Amino acid sequence: MEEKLRQLKKLWEEIADFKATSALLEWDQLVNMPEGAAQDRGEQIATIEKIAHDKLTSDEIGRLLDDLKIMLDQNDADSDDARLIKVAKRHYDKAIKVPAAFVSEFARASTIGQSVWEKAKLESSFETFRPCLEQLVELRRQYADFFKPWQHVYDPLLDDFEPGMKTVEVQEIFNALRPEQVELIRQISQESQVEKSFLFLNYPEEGQREFGVEVIEKFGYDWKHGRQDKSAHPFTTGFGLNDVRITTRFKSNFLPSAMFSSMHECGHALYELGINKRYNRSPLADGASMAVHESQSRLWENLVGRSRAFWRCFYPRLQEIFPSQLGNVTTETFYKAVNAVEPSLIRVEADEATYNLHIMLRMELEIALMEGSLSAKDAPQAWNEKMKDYLGILPPDNAQGVLQDVHWSFGGFGYFPTYALGNLVSAQLWERMLQDIPDVEGQIEQAKFADLLGWMRKHVHIHGAKFEPQELVQKITGSKIIPNPYMRYLETKFKDIYHL
Amino acid sequence: MEEKLRQLKKLWEEIADFKATSALLEWDQLVNMPEGAAQDRGEQIATIEKIAHDKLTSDEIGRLLDDLKIMLDQNDADSDDARLIKVAKRHYDKAIKVPAAFVSEFARASTIGQSVWEKAKLESSFETFRPCLEQLVELRRQYADFFKPWQHVYDPLLDDFEPGMKTVEVQEIFNALRPEQVELIRQISQESQVEKSFLFLNYPEEGQREFGVEVIEKFGYDWKHGRQDKSAHPFTTGFGLNDVRITTRFKSNFLPSAMFSSMHECGHALYELGINKRYNRSPLADGASMAVHESQSRLWENLVGRSRAFWRCFYPRLQEIFPSQLGNVTTETFYKAVNAVEPSLIRVEADEATYNLHIMLRMELEIALMEGSLSAKDAPQAWNEKMKDYLGILPPDNAQGVLQDVHWSFGGFGYFPTYALGNLVSAQLWERMLQDIPDVEGQIEQAKFADLLGWMRKHVHIHGAKFEPQELVQKITGSKIIPNPYMRYLETKFKDIYHL
Repeated sequence: MEEKLRQLKKLWEEIADFKATSALLEWDQLVNMPEGAAQDRGEQIATIEKIAHDKLTSDEIGRLLDDLKIMLDQNDADSDDARLIKVAKRHYDKAIKVPAAFVSEFARASTIGQSVWEKAKLESSFETFRPCLEQLVELRRQYADFFKPWQHVYDPLLDDFEPGMKTVEVQEIFNALRPEQVELIRQISQESQVEKSFLFLNYPEEGQREFGVEVIEKFGYDWKHGRQDKSAHPFTTGFGLNDVRITTRFKSNFLPSAMFSSMHECGHALYELGINKRYNRSPLADGASMAVHESQSRLWENLVGRSRAFWRCFYPRLQEIFPSQLGNVTTETFYKAVNAVEPSLIRVEADEATYNLHIMLRMELEIALMEGSLSAKDAPQAWNEKMKDYLGILPPDNAQGVLQDVHWSFGGFGYFPTYALGNLVSAQLWERMLQDIPDVEGQIEQAKFADLLGWMRKHVHIHGAKFEPQELVQKITGSKIIPNPYMRYLETKFKDIYHL
Repeated sequence: MEEKLRQLKKLWEEIADFKATSALLEWDQLVNMPEGAAQDRGEQIATIEKIAHDKLTSDEIGRLLDDLKIMLDQNDADSDDARLIKVAKRHYDKAIKVPAAFVSEFARASTIGQSVWEKAKLESSFETFRPCLEQLVELRRQYADFFKPWQHVYDPLLDDFEPGMKTVEVQEIFNALRPEQVELIRQISQESQVEKSFLFLNYPEEGQREFGVEVIEKFGYDWKHGRQDKSAHPFTTGFGLNDVRITTRFKSNFLPSAMFSSMHECGHALYELGINKRYNRSPLADGASMAVHESQSRLWENLVGRSRAFWRCFYPRLQEIFPSQLGNVTTETFYKAVNAVEPSLIRVEADEATYNLHIMLRMELEIALMEGSLSAKDAPQAWNEKMKDYLGILPPDNAQGVLQDVHWSFGGFGYFPTYALGNLVSAQLWERMLQDIPDVEGQIEQAKFADLLGWMRKHVHIHGAKFEPQELVQKITGSKIIPNPYMRYLETKFKDIYHL
């Protein structure tokens, strides 16, 4: 049995190398690649991913996993080896259930979907995109059917990002959260807005870069195992557990953009770099889920990076870099500006108080589309109605409404909820962490992040993909994912800022 | 038969994608990779290359090539398809003859060899490196034996870089060339040296970069299909025919370094970018040989970049960028400085007149080692004797002598001659090109390179790996590789500069 486990691990190392290689091909495409190479790069990625898929779904892996099932029952179910087998089996089972012909068809539809969506968004023409959306919904339904039986048609989609989590669980959480967030925003909207025009002055890129690099170095990002480049959209990617890179973009007329995206991506990178190195090139060398991943990025971006303690420490340095822009702006004014709440049309620009509502709207529409209770053609109207309900505003056109995000254009249903769940988990972890590090704010005010990072490493990062997200959160905080800590966090913060 | 050819091409596309991917992993390692990722990267490259090797040596490829042999006899032997099959068969036959166990053993020995050599060179201790050299020579003999029968034990090694070329051919060429180059250098050494101290002033990197970029853009390097980055040693690498990248390095106290290496690498890149795009992802998507590759890099570096016409055009711009360093240096003084001849110890710093002698020395030693007429322990003495004979100087230590180059440390015997052959081919092509573009100097003086590049594309680049090097040179110039044009070039140039 030990020999079979060794064989499985050995085979998985190759799969992991393929995964890392494919990630490098994609990173290079977004960061370095000259434009004339796009078609070749597409072929290269397709070739590598095809072989990776062949390796994962090989009879050899199937037989080893069958044989190793016995070991799962005999051994300590929480041992690394038992969990490794379990996670490997999960990947294998998922991959084997989807026929190769469907994979190709879906890949084609999502490639076309993206290019049609780009055009449709530019023209703000939903009608252009509608046939693609219809086809992608239909393909996603077929996809879900490969995993029957399920409780809900949305379950298999969600499961791709949140292993083991069910639609009904997310709905319960969101149903509890929605009215409270709506009410908070209503209260804030009745108060006078905070001053933030100085965030839109001209901030030269070099200064922004310098500040961002100083911050993430203090957080604990290690250049021996990472780097930061520029790309059109910020992202994090890893090639094994020893090389996790982040990207950023600079907006010369909006200071918060690069600053907070650097902290956000750094949070993702710290997570992957904190995974037990013994798991490298194994099925456990990954985050527990997208929500747990997002909990780490949002924690460093918001709970740390948008805190008063953080700016008490770092603001003087920022003023030093941008004396003419910020010389006359106090720490408190700056702190309030980067935390301004304002219902707005675009998700990626939303503040902490409104962000989750953008997500809930999307998940509700996705579920309705998958269930068939909403047809694609009615999506724009449904979108606008919910925007009015939750945020009190109406998109002037579909480009700023139903067409704003790329996700649906490649059939990425099931992903959106992970953003909001990540917010909830970040606050839940924070409350638990405070019991062990009651003075964390004092430490942040002195730019000391070692205890905080150490806590996250010990409780979250180290485990990699060993536990499912609900299991991990339960293990750390004593309960599954719940909305209360996040609501407490929002209320405390914004009642103070807006004097509610 | 058409169907089988289609299958072969299809399989080769995958092999080409693997090759491109492996090249990207290596490019990234040398240009971007954080140091902590070295071990993982090694595993990733090994995994990709193993699969690429498995694909190349698969029974499927073997059977297709067997079946397609008939087509080779029936069809026009010079058609693209016939040549594609021939080149594919060449790669397959070479790969299949070397047992996997040997490949692993050799890979291990060359990895160890490189790290031992680094240490040995640092300490200038040949004795440290000697056991590795002995083992690598022995392994290279075994390698040659896989390809028996051969005329000469060195043939299979040379053939890896110069398809179809034999040791005796190279020896004949070098034997004719050697006395003439030795005599030219003797004559030059009796003249007074040219002034070149201004090349060693401080030249800020940004200005060097700016000038280099302007030059290679004028040459015709297209940023839509390439980029230039920094690395410890300059190199060119491609990921398919639409993405060929170059690297450079800057020495703040030696102006020629980055300048000429940019032109050199650009020459390599222009070659690959000029290959018939229809050959992309096929066995023909490659240079004809290393010598032909080197002919292109040396042509742009030396025949163009070190010409009087070039500097008449570009020197004012260089003075503009570096006014304090070059403001008082005339074009003619500068031209002579970058062409100064001086017998020196280090190959990579050698001028055009002495360079080939460094190469001949190495090839003669390699052949003697392979034949067994020289034992590894006697290599330092043999080296020093030849240095005295050919260049009239004696290395003060082995670091500046027998240990100076990396090539032997990974068992890369057979590579060195391609550098000198490349020089010869560059002059041979130039003489032929002059018949079609008699005014090329006038064009260069106006920074017009389109005709020259067009000529190289039409006669050299477009064919990719379709023809063997000797065949290609014969086809273009009417004779195989010969030393006379290069000697004519050297004599004309240096008799003028040194008033011989």
